[in-house]
Amino acid sequence: MDLLRVTYRLAVDAAAAEARAEQVAREQTVEVPREALRDAELVRRIVGRVEAVAADGDAHARVTIAYPVETTALDPAQLLNVVFGMTSLQPDAECVAIDPPASLCRAFGGPRFGIEGLRKAVGVERRALTCTAVKPMGLAPEALAARMRIFARAGIDVVKDDQGLADHAFCPFDARVRACLAAVEEAADETGRRTLYAPNLIGAPEALFRQLRVAEDLGARAVMASPLLVGLPVFAELCRRAAVPVLAHPSFGGVQRFAPEALFGTLYRLYGADAVIFVGYAGRFGTSRAACRALAGNLRGSLHGLRPALPVPGGGITLDEIPEVVSFYGREAMLLIGGSLLVAPDDAALFDRSCEFVRRVAACTGSDA
Amino acid sequence: MDLLRVTYRLAVDAAAAEARAEQVAREQTVEVPREALRDAELVRRIVGRVEAVAADGDAHARVTIAYPVETTALDPAQLLNVVFGMTSLQPDAECVAIDPPASLCRAFGGPRFGIEGLRKAVGVERRALTCTAVKPMGLAPEALAARMRIFARAGIDVVKDDQGLADHAFCPFDARVRACLAAVEEAADETGRRTLYAPNLIGAPEALFRQLRVAEDLGARAVMASPLLVGLPVFAELCRRAAVPVLAHPSFGGVQRFAPEALFGTLYRLYGADAVIFVGYAGRFGTSRAACRALAGNLRGSLHGLRPALPVPGGGITLDEIPEVVSFYGREAMLLIGGSLLVAPDDAALFDRSCEFVRRVAACTGSDA
Repeated sequence: MDLLRVTYRLAVDAAAAEARAEQVAREQTVEVPREALRDAELVRRIVGRVEAVAADGDAHARVTIAYPVETTALDPAQLLNVVFGMTSLQPDAECVAIDPPASLCRAFGGPRFGIEGLRKAVGVERRALTCTAVKPMGLAPEALAARMRIFARAGIDVVKDDQGLADHAFCPFDARVRACLAAVEEAADETGRRTLYAPNLIGAPEALFRQLRVAEDLGARAVMASPLLVGLPVFAELCRRAAVPVLAHPSFGGVQRFAPEALFGTLYRLYGADAVIFVGYAGRFGTSRAACRALAGNLRGSLHGLRPALPVPGGGITLDEIPEVVSFYGREAMLLIGGSLLVAPDDAALFDRSCEFVRRVAACTGSDA
Repeated sequence: MDLLRVTYRLAVDAAAAEARAEQVAREQTVEVPREALRDAELVRRIVGRVEAVAADGDAHARVTIAYPVETTALDPAQLLNVVFGMTSLQPDAECVAIDPPASLCRAFGGPRFGIEGLRKAVGVERRALTCTAVKPMGLAPEALAARMRIFARAGIDVVKDDQGLADHAFCPFDARVRACLAAVEEAADETGRRTLYAPNLIGAPEALFRQLRVAEDLGARAVMASPLLVGLPVFAELCRRAAVPVLAHPSFGGVQRFAPEALFGTLYRLYGADAVIFVGYAGRFGTSRAACRALAGNLRGSLHGLRPALPVPGGGITLDEIPEVVSFYGREAMLLIGGSLLVAPDDAALFDRSCEFVRRVAACTGSDA
């Protein structure tokens, strides 16, 4: 029997942990009182087993539950249900780690392009990558395209839409993507290097998949979506349908009780993200260094043959922090810097700061390509 | 300019609240540093305005921000982005209230059937309604149908699938729905009353909408889905496409730092849920009475002409708690009791407890129909 192992941190002391863990195992599967479970064979096949219980600091315990993978129906929505569905509603529990078995990884497939495919798409073999965003919401397509042209001329590897760019009346999706792609081509004619532009896809499924089709038809070579805004299972379907690499954005991922390394690290990769943007320790979100390290490790580490996904720390990195951040994540990462470029007082300064961003990252990790 | 008002509880003292609120307003819209905003007209059109700041207990403040509704693009995914996208990632903020303008309510439409449509579907005019679940995961279709027959013969108004019933190899969706609907018909032939069965739809969009089609084709007169498992925007599209009432289940809803009255109350109704299951104060989840009262109020209260949605408290109510729970929520509610029926040692006892459930609710709120 293939097992899905999930680790929870529970606000109970060690003496009570085993019993509480057994409740969690039932809550996440059969969701009935223990007295209602009279079929031992069903318990074995469905409820799974508490495998490990350990004290974890003051009045807390870490417990690992092994669920039979069949409970997930190998379905991306049902997987969430088994991992943290009802227990997420109980304030004493946090989901801290997910260890999917090989069969689940095979069924989901993980990244279609991964780090290697992204490096190929931007033509950079060794050094850390650079990324920024066209923004803010409120600009018309031509104004966003003007910024795109600046970033592309400065040689930034990947430029994504801000996650807040939707199909707005004041900036429709199709016009925006067309204008930004044209700006990329203009800059490429000038510099000989083609920046990878990732339009933001957002909406209910019908709108979302229309946007994917439009973006690919217009020649986009990557796309971005926010899995928790559009729905994690929708994101999985998007990755399956997309012919180009997919970046994941953390919006709406407020993780009070879901450790970022488990959600953005393990799950987003399993669901197919080729690159995962997250809010790192540098900046205004205050994710711990330990969580960032674990998150990057979960994206890049070995996982039953799934391709590694690219960690993309963002959330307020400044130009001055580049050397430290690069040394923290290493070269198998892409730095996302937005605000620290946009504080430039005019377009000339924006271009200069963008060039500086590219230069500093290359200086830290080698200047290939 | 139509305004979407969102209230946050921030872990800052009153002196710092105004500045922090202004940051939130930018984070949720333009997401750039203040220095990068040099276009006053764009700020007015997009960033919106901090409307209210008030101290809220020790070292906390409540702030209300009015966002121009245009920022949402009237899109269900982008709405989440504006309401709590990036701020959800900052540990000092909780989203506590959403006040959608009339234009947004018109665009989304809210419940298609609402309380009135549900009462019509079950043929009960006045009293509170009764609800239970066929479960647990692991039973084959015929075993679940046997339980359905017992509940239907006992006269329970609505029987939903457990939210953990997916399209499992050991209990495929089509076979399960067919068997349960047949059991409903058998019981109806006997009693003259037809229980409303709501199959659980779960999966990525393609699977989900296939399940909807199958359920409706087989004659299901209601369906259920978990908005945060399938994705809130998918749920909105499901409500738009479904020809029958849609129940919302709270699974995976604890992941966000999001007050239950705002998430399950306002948003789930706005997105179209006709009935909203939540984990109430009675039971094993510990939601506060104040939150339950506010949640039920948000579902049933006036909201720009949207139909009221039915509050469905669940999460561990016992038979003995029925009078108190009914007096708390009133008759415009549906009690969901699962475990307290299923502790019965055999099928005869399960039938007796189910009848007792129906009897007690009727005794509290009148026995029409």
